[in-house]
Amino acid sequence: MISGGGSGHEPLHTGFVGPGMLDAAVPGDVFASPTALQVRAAIEATDSGAGTVVIVKNYTGDVLNFSIAADLLSRTHRVETVLVDDDLATESEDEAGPGRRGTAAVVVVEKVCGAAATAGAPLAEVRDLGRDVVSRSATLSVAFEAPVNPLSGLRSFELDEGEVEFGVGIHGERGIETRAATEAAELVESVTDPLIDALGLGRGAPVLAVVNGLGATHGLELNIATHELRRHLDGRGVRIARSLVGPYVTSLDMKGFSITLTAVTDELVELWDAPVRTPALHW
Amino acid sequence: MISGGGSGHEPLHTGFVGPGMLDAAVPGDVFASPTALQVRAAIEATDSGAGTVVIVKNYTGDVLNFSIAADLLSRTHRVETVLVDDDLATESEDEAGPGRRGTAAVVVVEKVCGAAATAGAPLAEVRDLGRDVVSRSATLSVAFEAPVNPLSGLRSFELDEGEVEFGVGIHGERGIETRAATEAAELVESVTDPLIDALGLGRGAPVLAVVNGLGATHGLELNIATHELRRHLDGRGVRIARSLVGPYVTSLDMKGFSITLTAVTDELVELWDAPVRTPALHW
Repeated sequence: MISGGGSGHEPLHTGFVGPGMLDAAVPGDVFASPTALQVRAAIEATDSGAGTVVIVKNYTGDVLNFSIAADLLSRTHRVETVLVDDDLATESEDEAGPGRRGTAAVVVVEKVCGAAATAGAPLAEVRDLGRDVVSRSATLSVAFEAPVNPLSGLRSFELDEGEVEFGVGIHGERGIETRAATEAAELVESVTDPLIDALGLGRGAPVLAVVNGLGATHGLELNIATHELRRHLDGRGVRIARSLVGPYVTSLDMKGFSITLTAVTDELVELWDAPVRTPALHW
Repeated sequence: MISGGGSGHEPLHTGFVGPGMLDAAVPGDVFASPTALQVRAAIEATDSGAGTVVIVKNYTGDVLNFSIAADLLSRTHRVETVLVDDDLATESEDEAGPGRRGTAAVVVVEKVCGAAATAGAPLAEVRDLGRDVVSRSATLSVAFEAPVNPLSGLRSFELDEGEVEFGVGIHGERGIETRAATEAAELVESVTDPLIDALGLGRGAPVLAVVNGLGATHGLELNIATHELRRHLDGRGVRIARSLVGPYVTSLDMKGFSITLTAVTDELVELWDAPVRTPALHW
Protein backbone atom coordinates (compact mmCIF):
# COMPACT_ATOMS: atom_id res chain seq x y z
CA MET A 1 0.00 0.00 0.00
CA ILE A 2 1.48 3.30 -1.03
CA SER A 3 0.39 6.90 -1.12
CA GLY A 4 1.99 10.22 -1.94
CA GLY A 5 1.54 13.72 -3.22
CA GLY A 6 3.09 17.14 -2.87
CA SER A 7 5.20 18.04 0.14
CA GLY A 8 4.17 20.73 2.61
CA HIS A 9 1.44 18.57 4.15
CA GLU A 10 3.64 16.75 6.66
CA PRO A 11 3.24 14.44 8.53
CA LEU A 12 1.17 13.31 5.49
CA HIS A 13 2.24 10.92 3.92
CA THR A 14 5.75 10.05 5.10
CA GLY A 15 4.61 10.08 8.73
CA PHE A 16 2.19 7.23 8.00
CA VAL A 17 4.73 4.73 6.70
CA GLY A 18 5.12 1.77 9.00
CA PRO A 19 3.52 -1.43 10.26
CA GLY A 20 -0.27 -1.23 10.01
CA MET A 21 -0.35 1.59 7.50
CA LEU A 22 1.69 2.50 4.37
CA ASP A 23 4.58 0.57 2.84
CA ALA A 24 5.94 3.68 1.16
CA ALA A 25 5.16 7.36 0.63
CA VAL A 26 6.09 9.22 -2.53
CA PRO A 27 6.69 12.93 -1.95
CA GLY A 28 6.77 15.54 -4.69
CA ASP A 29 8.12 19.06 -4.30
CA VAL A 30 6.11 21.46 -2.15
CA PHE A 31 2.51 21.38 -3.40
CA ALA A 32 3.54 19.47 -6.56
CA SER A 33 2.80 15.90 -7.56
CA PRO A 34 5.58 13.33 -7.49
CA THR A 35 6.61 12.07 -10.91
CA ALA A 36 5.28 8.85 -12.39
CA LEU A 37 8.79 7.41 -12.25
CA GLN A 38 8.94 8.02 -8.49
CA VAL A 39 5.60 6.28 -8.08
CA ARG A 40 6.74 3.39 -10.26
CA ALA A 41 9.89 3.00 -8.15
CA ALA A 42 7.81 2.90 -4.97
CA ILE A 43 5.51 0.22 -6.34
CA GLU A 44 8.44 -1.88 -7.57
CA ALA A 45 10.23 -1.52 -4.26
CA THR A 46 7.29 -2.61 -2.12
CA ASP A 47 5.12 -5.03 -4.09
CA SER A 48 5.27 -8.38 -2.31
CA GLY A 49 3.48 -10.07 -5.21
CA ALA A 50 0.02 -9.54 -3.73
CA GLY A 51 -0.42 -6.31 -5.68
CA THR A 52 -0.45 -2.67 -4.67
CA VAL A 53 -3.21 -0.36 -3.56
CA VAL A 54 -2.31 3.25 -4.31
CA ILE A 55 -4.17 5.89 -2.33
CA VAL A 56 -4.39 9.13 -4.26
CA LYS A 57 -5.86 12.47 -3.26
CA ASN A 58 -7.94 13.89 -6.07
CA TYR A 59 -5.67 16.48 -7.71
CA THR A 60 -5.01 16.49 -11.43
CA GLY A 61 -1.24 16.03 -11.19
CA ASP A 62 -1.41 13.25 -8.64
CA VAL A 63 -4.14 11.38 -10.50
CA LEU A 64 -2.15 11.65 -13.72
CA ASN A 65 1.21 10.55 -12.34
CA PHE A 66 -0.13 7.67 -10.25
CA SER A 67 -2.13 6.38 -13.21
CA ILE A 68 0.85 6.62 -15.59
CA ALA A 69 2.89 4.63 -13.08
CA ALA A 70 0.19 1.96 -12.92
CA ASP A 71 0.12 1.85 -16.75
CA LEU A 72 3.90 1.55 -16.95
CA LEU A 73 3.72 -1.48 -14.68
CA SER A 74 0.55 -3.03 -16.08
CA ARG A 75 2.34 -6.12 -17.40
CA THR A 76 4.18 -6.95 -14.21
CA HIS A 77 2.22 -5.54 -11.28
CA ARG A 78 -1.38 -5.48 -10.18
CA VAL A 79 -2.19 -1.93 -9.08
CA GLU A 80 -5.54 -0.79 -7.71
CA THR A 81 -6.40 2.83 -6.98
CA VAL A 82 -8.43 4.45 -4.22
CA LEU A 83 -9.24 8.05 -5.10
CA VAL A 84 -9.89 10.25 -2.08
CA ASP A 85 -12.23 13.21 -2.71
CA ASP A 86 -13.71 14.25 0.62
CA ASP A 87 -13.61 18.06 0.46
CA LEU A 88 -17.19 19.36 0.41
CA ALA A 89 -16.00 22.87 -0.43
CA THR A 90 -15.33 21.70 -3.98
CA GLU A 91 -18.64 19.91 -4.48
CA SER A 92 -19.91 20.70 -7.94
CA GLU A 93 -22.60 19.49 -10.28
CA ASP A 94 -20.22 19.74 -13.20
CA GLU A 95 -19.75 16.11 -14.24
CA ALA A 96 -16.84 17.03 -16.48
CA GLY A 97 -15.01 18.95 -13.75
CA PRO A 98 -12.13 17.69 -11.63
CA GLY A 99 -14.47 16.63 -8.80
CA ARG A 100 -13.94 17.19 -5.12
CA ARG A 101 -10.44 17.66 -3.70
CA GLY A 102 -8.88 15.06 -1.45
CA THR A 103 -7.91 16.08 2.04
CA ALA A 104 -7.85 14.74 5.62
CA ALA A 105 -10.06 11.69 4.98
CA VAL A 106 -6.96 10.22 3.36
CA VAL A 107 -5.62 9.51 6.86
CA VAL A 108 -8.70 7.45 7.68
CA VAL A 109 -8.42 5.59 4.37
CA GLU A 110 -4.73 4.83 4.92
CA LYS A 111 -5.30 3.65 8.49
CA VAL A 112 -8.30 1.43 7.75
CA CYS A 113 -6.89 -0.05 4.52
CA GLY A 114 -3.52 -0.54 6.20
CA ALA A 115 -5.16 -2.55 8.96
CA ALA A 116 -7.04 -4.70 6.46
CA ALA A 117 -3.94 -5.29 4.33
CA THR A 118 -1.91 -6.17 7.41
CA ALA A 119 -4.61 -8.69 8.37
CA GLY A 120 -4.16 -10.29 4.94
CA ALA A 121 -7.16 -8.98 3.01
CA PRO A 122 -6.73 -9.48 -0.74
CA LEU A 123 -6.07 -6.62 -3.13
CA ALA A 124 -9.62 -6.05 -4.36
CA GLU A 125 -11.00 -6.14 -0.84
CA VAL A 126 -8.58 -3.47 0.40
CA ARG A 127 -9.44 -1.32 -2.63
CA ASP A 128 -13.19 -1.68 -2.06
CA LEU A 129 -12.80 -0.94 1.62
CA GLY A 130 -10.88 2.24 0.82
CA ARG A 131 -13.52 3.36 -1.66
CA ASP A 132 -16.20 2.63 0.94
CA VAL A 133 -14.40 4.81 3.51
CA VAL A 134 -14.17 7.64 0.96
CA SER A 135 -17.91 7.43 0.28
CA ARG A 136 -18.58 7.62 4.02
CA SER A 137 -16.33 10.67 4.62
CA ALA A 138 -16.65 14.43 4.24
CA THR A 139 -14.36 17.31 5.21
CA LEU A 140 -14.52 21.09 5.46
CA SER A 141 -11.63 23.43 6.29
CA VAL A 142 -11.44 27.01 7.58
CA ALA A 143 -8.41 29.27 7.70
CA PHE A 144 -7.51 32.29 9.83
CA GLU A 145 -4.31 32.96 7.92
CA ALA A 146 -3.09 31.66 4.56
CA PRO A 147 0.22 29.81 4.18
CA VAL A 148 3.39 31.58 3.12
CA ASN A 149 5.01 30.25 -0.04
CA PRO A 150 8.54 29.30 1.03
CA LEU A 151 10.03 30.38 -2.30
CA SER A 152 8.28 33.71 -2.89
CA GLY A 153 7.80 34.57 0.79
CA LEU A 154 4.26 35.66 -0.09
CA ARG A 155 1.03 34.63 1.59
CA SER A 156 -1.28 32.89 -0.87
CA PHE A 157 -4.14 35.19 0.12
CA GLU A 158 -4.75 37.95 2.65
CA LEU A 159 -7.48 38.12 5.26
CA ASP A 160 -8.41 41.22 7.20
CA GLU A 161 -8.49 41.22 10.97
CA GLY A 162 -11.63 39.42 12.10
CA GLU A 163 -12.13 37.45 8.90
CA VAL A 164 -11.99 33.71 8.30
CA GLU A 165 -11.82 31.94 4.98
CA PHE A 166 -14.40 29.16 4.77
CA GLY A 167 -13.79 26.09 2.62
CA VAL A 168 -10.08 26.51 1.91
CA GLY A 169 -7.91 23.88 0.26
CA ILE A 170 -4.56 22.60 1.46
CA HIS A 171 -2.46 24.33 -1.22
CA GLY A 172 -3.22 27.92 -0.36
CA GLU A 173 -6.44 27.85 -2.40
CA ARG A 174 -8.94 30.46 -1.26
CA GLY A 175 -12.18 29.10 0.14
CA ILE A 176 -15.72 29.46 -1.09
CA GLU A 177 -16.45 32.47 1.11
CA THR A 178 -14.74 35.01 3.37
CA ARG A 179 -16.78 35.32 6.54
CA ALA A 180 -16.68 37.37 9.71
CA ALA A 181 -14.94 35.52 12.52
CA THR A 182 -17.30 34.18 15.18
CA GLU A 183 -16.97 32.44 18.52
CA ALA A 184 -15.56 28.93 18.30
CA ALA A 185 -18.95 27.26 18.88
CA GLU A 186 -20.58 28.99 15.93
CA LEU A 187 -17.59 28.44 13.66
CA VAL A 188 -17.45 24.72 14.43
CA GLU A 189 -21.19 24.46 13.87
CA SER A 190 -20.87 26.10 10.45
CA VAL A 191 -18.22 23.56 9.49
CA THR A 192 -19.99 20.55 10.96
CA ASP A 193 -23.58 20.94 9.79
CA PRO A 194 -22.78 20.56 6.08
CA LEU A 195 -20.83 17.38 6.90
CA ILE A 196 -23.77 15.90 8.80
CA ASP A 197 -26.09 16.76 5.94
CA ALA A 198 -23.77 15.43 3.23
CA LEU A 199 -23.34 12.12 5.02
CA GLY A 200 -27.02 11.93 5.94
CA LEU A 201 -26.16 11.21 9.58
CA GLY A 202 -29.23 10.45 11.68
CA ARG A 203 -29.62 10.33 15.44
CA GLY A 204 -27.39 7.70 17.04
CA ALA A 205 -25.13 7.46 13.98
CA PRO A 206 -21.55 6.64 15.02
CA VAL A 207 -18.77 8.68 13.43
CA LEU A 208 -15.02 8.90 13.44
CA ALA A 209 -14.12 12.59 13.84
CA VAL A 210 -10.79 14.03 12.73
CA VAL A 211 -10.05 17.56 13.97
CA ASN A 212 -7.00 18.43 11.93
CA GLY A 213 -4.62 21.35 12.38
CA LEU A 214 -3.66 22.96 9.07
CA GLY A 215 -0.05 23.68 10.01
CA ALA A 216 0.34 26.55 12.45
CA THR A 217 -2.69 25.98 14.63
CA HIS A 218 -1.90 25.50 18.29
CA GLY A 219 -3.02 22.37 20.15
CA LEU A 220 -5.04 24.54 22.54
CA GLU A 221 -7.12 25.81 19.63
CA LEU A 222 -7.64 22.31 18.22
CA ASN A 223 -8.80 21.19 21.66
CA ILE A 224 -11.28 24.06 21.79
CA ALA A 225 -12.61 23.11 18.35
CA THR A 226 -12.88 19.48 19.44
CA HIS A 227 -14.77 20.46 22.57
CA GLU A 228 -17.25 22.46 20.50
CA LEU A 229 -17.55 19.64 17.98
CA ARG A 230 -18.43 17.19 20.76
CA ARG A 231 -21.03 19.56 22.13
CA HIS A 232 -22.58 20.20 18.77
CA LEU A 233 -22.66 16.55 17.69
CA ASP A 234 -24.21 15.66 21.05
CA GLY A 235 -26.96 18.15 20.32
CA ARG A 236 -27.53 16.65 16.86
CA GLY A 237 -27.57 13.11 18.31
CA VAL A 238 -24.46 12.03 16.40
CA ARG A 239 -22.13 9.83 18.41
CA ILE A 240 -18.33 10.17 18.22
CA ALA A 241 -17.14 6.57 18.19
CA ARG A 242 -13.51 7.57 17.76
CA SER A 243 -11.63 10.83 17.32
CA LEU A 244 -8.24 12.01 16.19
CA VAL A 245 -7.03 15.51 17.04
CA GLY A 246 -3.79 17.06 15.83
CA PRO A 247 -1.88 18.31 12.78
CA TYR A 248 -2.05 15.41 10.33
CA VAL A 249 -2.72 16.99 6.92
CA THR A 250 -1.14 20.41 6.96
CA SER A 251 -0.66 23.20 4.48
CA LEU A 252 2.72 24.68 5.40
CA ASP A 253 2.10 27.35 8.03
CA MET A 254 -1.58 27.94 7.39
CA LYS A 255 -3.60 28.78 10.49
CA GLY A 256 -6.90 26.99 10.66
CA PHE A 257 -8.40 23.57 10.99
CA SER A 258 -10.45 21.00 9.16
CA ILE A 259 -13.09 18.64 10.44
CA THR A 260 -13.59 15.26 8.80
CA LEU A 261 -16.47 12.99 9.71
CA THR A 262 -16.56 9.36 8.62
CA ALA A 263 -19.76 7.38 9.19
CA VAL A 264 -18.39 4.19 10.69
CA THR A 265 -19.51 0.62 11.14
CA ASP A 266 -18.29 -1.77 13.84
CA GLU A 267 -15.91 -3.27 11.28
CA LEU A 268 -14.41 0.12 10.45
CA VAL A 269 -13.94 0.93 14.14
CA GLU A 270 -12.17 -2.39 14.61
CA LEU A 271 -9.82 -1.64 11.70
CA TRP A 272 -9.23 1.87 13.05
CA ASP A 273 -8.33 0.39 16.46
CA ALA A 274 -5.90 -2.18 15.04
CA PRO A 275 -2.28 -1.63 16.05
CA VAL A 276 -0.29 0.90 14.02
CA ARG A 277 3.33 1.91 14.37
CA THR A 278 4.29 4.94 12.31
CA PRO A 279 5.95 8.24 13.19
CA ALA A 280 2.64 10.13 13.18
CA LEU A 281 0.11 7.48 14.28
CA HIS A 282 1.02 4.94 16.85
CA TRP A 283 -1.14 2.70 19.01
CA MET B 1 5.00 12.04 39.57
CA ILE B 2 3.35 15.30 38.63
CA SER B 3 4.28 18.40 36.72
CA GLY B 4 2.54 21.54 35.61
CA GLY B 5 2.83 25.18 34.73
CA GLY B 6 1.12 27.76 32.57
CA SER B 7 -0.97 26.76 29.57
CA GLY B 8 0.00 27.71 26.02
CA HIS B 9 2.83 25.15 25.89
CA GLU B 10 0.74 22.16 24.82
CA PRO B 11 1.27 19.23 24.55
CA LEU B 12 3.35 20.03 27.67
CA HIS B 13 2.36 18.89 30.33
CA THR B 14 -1.09 17.35 29.85
CA GLY B 15 0.08 15.41 26.81
CA PHE B 16 2.60 13.55 28.94
CA VAL B 17 0.15 12.07 31.43
CA GLY B 18 -0.08 8.30 31.16
CA PRO B 19 1.68 5.02 31.85
CA GLY B 20 5.44 5.49 31.91
CA MET B 21 5.37 9.24 32.44
CA LEU B 22 3.26 11.63 34.57
CA ASP B 23 0.43 10.75 36.96
CA ALA B 24 -1.09 14.22 36.67
CA ALA B 25 -0.47 17.61 35.06
CA VAL B 26 -1.53 20.86 36.68
CA PRO B 27 -2.26 23.60 34.15
CA GLY B 28 -2.50 27.29 34.99
CA ASP B 29 -3.99 29.94 32.74
CA VAL B 30 -2.05 30.84 29.59
CA PHE B 31 1.54 31.62 30.64
CA ALA B 32 0.55 31.73 34.34
CA SER B 33 1.42 29.34 37.14
CA PRO B 34 -1.25 27.03 38.53
CA THR B 35 -2.27 27.83 42.11
CA ALA B 36 -0.82 26.03 45.10
CA LEU B 37 -4.27 24.58 45.81
CA GLN B 38 -4.39 23.04 42.35
CA VAL B 39 -0.98 21.49 42.90
CA ARG B 40 -2.03 20.24 46.34
CA ALA B 41 -5.14 18.62 44.85
CA ALA B 42 -3.00 16.86 42.21
CA ILE B 43 -0.61 15.48 44.80
CA GLU B 44 -3.47 14.29 47.02
CA ALA B 45 -5.23 12.68 44.09
CA THR B 46 -2.23 10.72 42.86
CA ASP B 47 0.03 9.87 45.82
CA SER B 48 0.05 6.09 46.19
CA GLY B 49 1.86 6.35 49.52
CA ALA B 50 5.31 6.13 47.96
CA GLY B 51 5.58 9.92 47.81
CA THR B 52 5.48 12.40 44.94
CA VAL B 53 8.16 13.83 42.70
CA VAL B 54 7.10 17.22 41.36
CA ILE B 55 8.88 18.40 38.23
CA VAL B 56 8.93 22.18 38.05
CA LYS B 57 10.27 24.47 35.35
CA ASN B 58 12.27 27.30 36.88
CA TYR B 59 9.87 30.25 36.84
CA THR B 60 9.15 32.29 39.95
CA GLY B 61 5.41 31.62 40.06
CA ASP B 62 5.72 27.89 39.45
CA VAL B 63 8.50 27.48 42.00
CA LEU B 64 6.46 29.40 44.57
CA ASN B 65 3.18 27.57 44.06
CA PHE B 66 4.65 24.08 43.88
CA SER B 67 6.67 24.73 47.05
CA ILE B 68 3.64 26.13 48.94
CA ALA B 69 1.74 22.98 47.96
CA ALA B 70 4.55 20.79 49.28
CA ASP B 71 4.56 22.81 52.51
CA LEU B 72 0.80 22.50 52.90
CA LEU B 73 1.14 18.74 52.66
CA SER B 74 4.35 18.34 54.66
CA ARG B 75 2.66 16.42 57.49
CA THR B 76 0.90 13.90 55.32
CA HIS B 77 2.85 13.55 52.06
CA ARG B 78 6.46 13.17 51.07
CA VAL B 79 7.14 15.53 48.17
CA GLU B 80 10.47 15.85 46.37
CA THR B 81 11.17 18.50 43.75
CA VAL B 82 13.17 18.41 40.54
CA LEU B 83 13.80 21.94 39.28
CA VAL B 84 14.41 22.14 35.53
CA ASP B 85 16.61 25.05 34.40
CA ASP B 86 18.09 24.14 31.05
CA ASP B 87 17.84 27.41 29.07
CA LEU B 88 21.35 28.66 28.35
CA ALA B 89 20.01 31.99 27.12
CA THR B 90 19.34 32.95 30.73
CA GLU B 91 22.71 31.87 32.08
CA SER B 92 23.91 34.52 34.53
CA GLU B 93 26.62 34.91 37.13
CA ASP B 94 24.18 36.63 39.48
CA GLU B 95 23.85 34.16 42.35
CA ALA B 96 20.87 36.04 43.77
CA GLY B 97 18.99 36.05 40.43
CA PRO B 98 16.21 33.71 39.39
CA GLY B 99 18.62 31.38 37.58
CA ARG B 100 18.14 29.76 34.20
CA ARG B 101 14.64 29.22 32.80
CA GLY B 102 13.20 25.76 32.38
CA THR B 103 12.23 24.64 28.91
CA ALA B 104 12.28 21.55 26.68
CA ALA B 105 14.62 19.45 28.85
CA VAL B 106 11.55 18.99 31.05
CA VAL B 107 10.29 16.42 28.55
CA VAL B 108 13.47 14.38 28.97
CA VAL B 109 13.23 14.64 32.76
CA GLU B 110 9.58 13.55 32.75
CA LYS B 111 10.26 10.61 30.43
CA VAL B 112 13.32 9.31 32.23
CA CYS B 113 11.93 9.79 35.75
CA GLY B 114 8.61 8.31 34.67
CA ALA B 115 10.37 5.18 33.45
CA ALA B 116 12.31 4.86 36.70
CA ALA B 117 9.21 5.40 38.84
CA THR B 118 7.27 2.88 36.77
CA ALA B 119 10.07 0.37 37.32
CA GLY B 120 9.65 0.88 41.08
CA ALA B 121 12.57 3.18 41.92
CA PRO B 122 12.09 4.80 45.35
CA LEU B 123 11.29 8.49 45.76
CA ALA B 124 14.80 9.80 46.43
CA GLU B 125 16.23 7.85 43.54
CA VAL B 126 13.72 9.28 41.07
CA ARG B 127 14.44 12.78 42.39
CA ASP B 128 18.22 12.33 42.07
CA LEU B 129 17.84 10.89 38.59
CA GLY B 130 15.78 13.92 37.54
CA ARG B 131 18.35 16.32 38.92
CA ASP B 132 21.08 14.40 37.15
CA VAL B 133 19.23 14.71 33.82
CA VAL B 134 18.84 18.46 34.38
CA SER B 135 22.58 18.83 35.03
CA ARG B 136 23.28 16.96 31.79
CA SER B 137 20.92 19.08 29.64
CA ALA B 138 21.07 22.42 27.88
CA THR B 139 18.69 24.19 25.51
CA LEU B 140 18.67 27.22 23.22
CA SER B 141 15.71 28.59 21.27
CA VAL B 142 15.36 30.84 18.22
CA ALA B 143 12.25 32.54 16.91
CA PHE B 144 11.26 33.83 13.48
CA GLU B 145 8.00 35.29 14.75
CA ALA B 146 6.79 36.02 18.28
CA PRO B 147 3.56 34.55 19.63
CA VAL B 148 0.29 36.47 19.60
CA ASN B 149 -1.30 37.04 22.98
CA PRO B 150 -4.78 35.51 22.65
CA LEU B 151 -6.36 38.19 24.85
CA SER B 152 -4.77 41.36 23.46
CA GLY B 153 -4.26 40.06 19.94
CA LEU B 154 -0.77 41.60 20.02
CA ARG B 155 2.52 39.93 19.16
CA SER B 156 4.86 39.96 22.14
CA PHE B 157 7.64 41.46 20.01
CA GLU B 158 8.15 42.39 16.39
CA LEU B 159 10.90 41.22 14.07
CA ASP B 160 11.72 42.75 10.74
CA GLU B 161 11.87 40.68 7.59
CA GLY B 162 15.08 38.68 7.61
CA GLU B 163 15.63 38.84 11.36
CA VAL B 164 15.65 36.05 13.91
CA GLU B 165 15.52 36.40 17.67
CA PHE B 166 18.20 34.31 19.33
CA GLY B 167 17.70 32.92 22.83
CA VAL B 168 13.97 33.50 23.23
CA GLY B 169 11.89 32.14 26.09
CA ILE B 170 8.62 30.25 25.84
CA HIS B 171 6.39 33.09 27.14
CA GLY B 172 7.02 35.63 24.44
CA GLU B 173 10.21 36.84 26.13
CA ARG B 174 12.63 38.50 23.72
CA GLY B 175 15.92 36.72 23.26
CA ILE B 176 19.43 37.85 24.03
CA GLU B 177 20.05 39.17 20.54
CA THR B 178 18.28 39.97 17.28
CA ARG B 179 20.34 38.57 14.42
CA ALA B 180 20.18 38.52 10.66
CA ALA B 181 18.57 35.35 9.35
CA THR B 182 21.01 32.87 7.85
CA GLU B 183 20.81 29.57 6.04
CA ALA B 184 19.55 26.68 8.19
CA ALA B 185 23.01 25.12 8.57
CA GLU B 186 24.51 28.27 10.05
CA LEU B 187 21.53 28.93 12.29
CA VAL B 188 21.57 25.40 13.70
CA GLU B 189 25.30 25.66 14.26
CA SER B 190 24.88 28.89 16.22
CA VAL B 191 22.33 27.20 18.46
CA THR B 192 24.24 23.96 18.87
CA ASP B 193 27.79 25.08 19.58
CA PRO B 194 26.96 26.77 22.91
CA LEU B 195 25.16 23.60 24.00
CA ILE B 196 28.19 21.43 23.18
CA ASP B 197 30.43 23.82 25.07
CA ALA B 198 28.13 24.12 28.09
CA LEU B 199 27.86 20.35 28.43
CA GLY B 200 31.56 19.83 27.72
CA LEU B 201 30.78 17.22 25.09
CA GLY B 202 33.89 15.55 23.72
CA ARG B 203 34.35 13.38 20.66
CA GLY B 204 32.23 10.23 20.79
CA ALA B 205 29.96 11.61 23.51
CA PRO B 206 26.43 10.20 23.12
CA VAL B 207 23.53 12.67 23.36
CA LEU B 208 19.79 12.67 23.27
CA ALA B 209 18.75 15.49 20.93
CA VAL B 210 15.34 17.17 21.09
CA VAL B 211 14.47 19.38 18.12
CA ASN B 212 11.36 21.10 19.38
CA GLY B 213 8.85 23.19 17.44
CA LEU B 214 7.79 26.32 19.31
CA GLY B 215 4.17 26.25 18.18
CA ALA B 216 3.70 27.28 14.58
CA THR B 217 6.77 25.71 13.02
CA HIS B 218 6.06 23.25 10.25
CA GLY B 219 7.33 19.67 10.41
CA LEU B 220 9.27 20.25 7.19
CA GLU B 221 11.27 23.00 8.89
CA LEU B 222 11.92 20.89 11.97
CA ASN B 223 13.17 18.11 9.72
CA ILE B 224 15.52 20.53 7.99
CA ALA B 225 16.84 21.69 11.38
CA THR B 226 17.29 18.08 12.46
CA HIS B 227 19.17 17.25 9.30
CA GLU B 228 21.54 20.16 9.87
CA LEU B 229 21.93 19.22 13.54
CA ARG B 230 22.94 15.70 12.57
CA ARG B 231 25.46 17.02 10.08
CA HIS B 232 26.93 19.47 12.52
CA LEU B 233 27.17 17.02 15.43
CA ASP B 234 28.79 14.51 13.09
CA GLY B 235 31.41 17.09 12.30
CA ARG B 236 32.01 17.76 15.99
CA GLY B 237 32.22 14.03 16.75
CA VAL B 238 29.13 14.07 18.97
CA ARG B 239 26.92 11.01 18.53
CA ILE B 240 23.11 11.24 18.54
CA ALA B 241 22.09 8.21 20.58
CA ARG B 242 18.40 9.13 20.42
CA SER B 243 16.38 12.00 19.01
CA LEU B 244 12.92 13.46 19.35
CA VAL B 245 11.57 15.85 16.72
CA GLY B 246 8.26 17.68 16.94
CA PRO B 247 6.26 20.31 18.79
CA TYR B 248 6.51 19.26 22.44
CA VAL B 249 7.08 22.48 24.40
CA THR B 250 5.35 25.25 22.51
CA SER B 251 4.72 28.92 23.03
CA LEU B 252 1.30 29.49 21.50
CA ASP B 253 1.84 30.30 17.82
CA MET B 254 5.49 31.30 17.98
CA LYS B 255 7.50 30.37 14.91
CA GLY B 256 10.88 28.94 15.73
CA PHE B 257 12.53 25.95 17.32
CA SER B 258 14.67 24.92 20.23
CA ILE B 259 17.42 22.36 20.43
CA THR B 260 18.04 20.46 23.65
CA LEU B 261 21.01 18.20 24.11
CA THR B 262 21.26 15.78 27.03
CA ALA B 263 24.55 13.96 27.61
CA VAL B 264 23.32 10.41 28.13
CA THR B 265 24.59 7.22 29.71
CA ASP B 266 23.51 3.71 28.77
CA GLU B 267 21.17 3.76 31.77
CA LEU B 268 19.51 6.99 30.61
CA VAL B 269 19.06 5.61 27.10
CA GLU B 270 17.43 2.51 28.55
CA LEU B 271 15.02 4.63 30.60
CA TRP B 272 14.31 6.78 27.53
CA ASP B 273 13.53 3.63 25.53
CA ALA B 274 11.18 2.17 28.17
CA PRO B 275 7.54 1.93 27.05
CA VAL B 276 5.43 5.07 27.38
CA ARG B 277 1.77 5.56 26.57
CA THR B 278 0.67 9.18 26.64
CA PRO B 279 -1.12 11.38 24.11
CA ALA B 280 2.11 13.10 23.04
CA LEU B 281 4.77 10.41 23.54
CA HIS B 282 4.00 6.82 22.80
CA TRP B 283 6.27 3.85 22.22
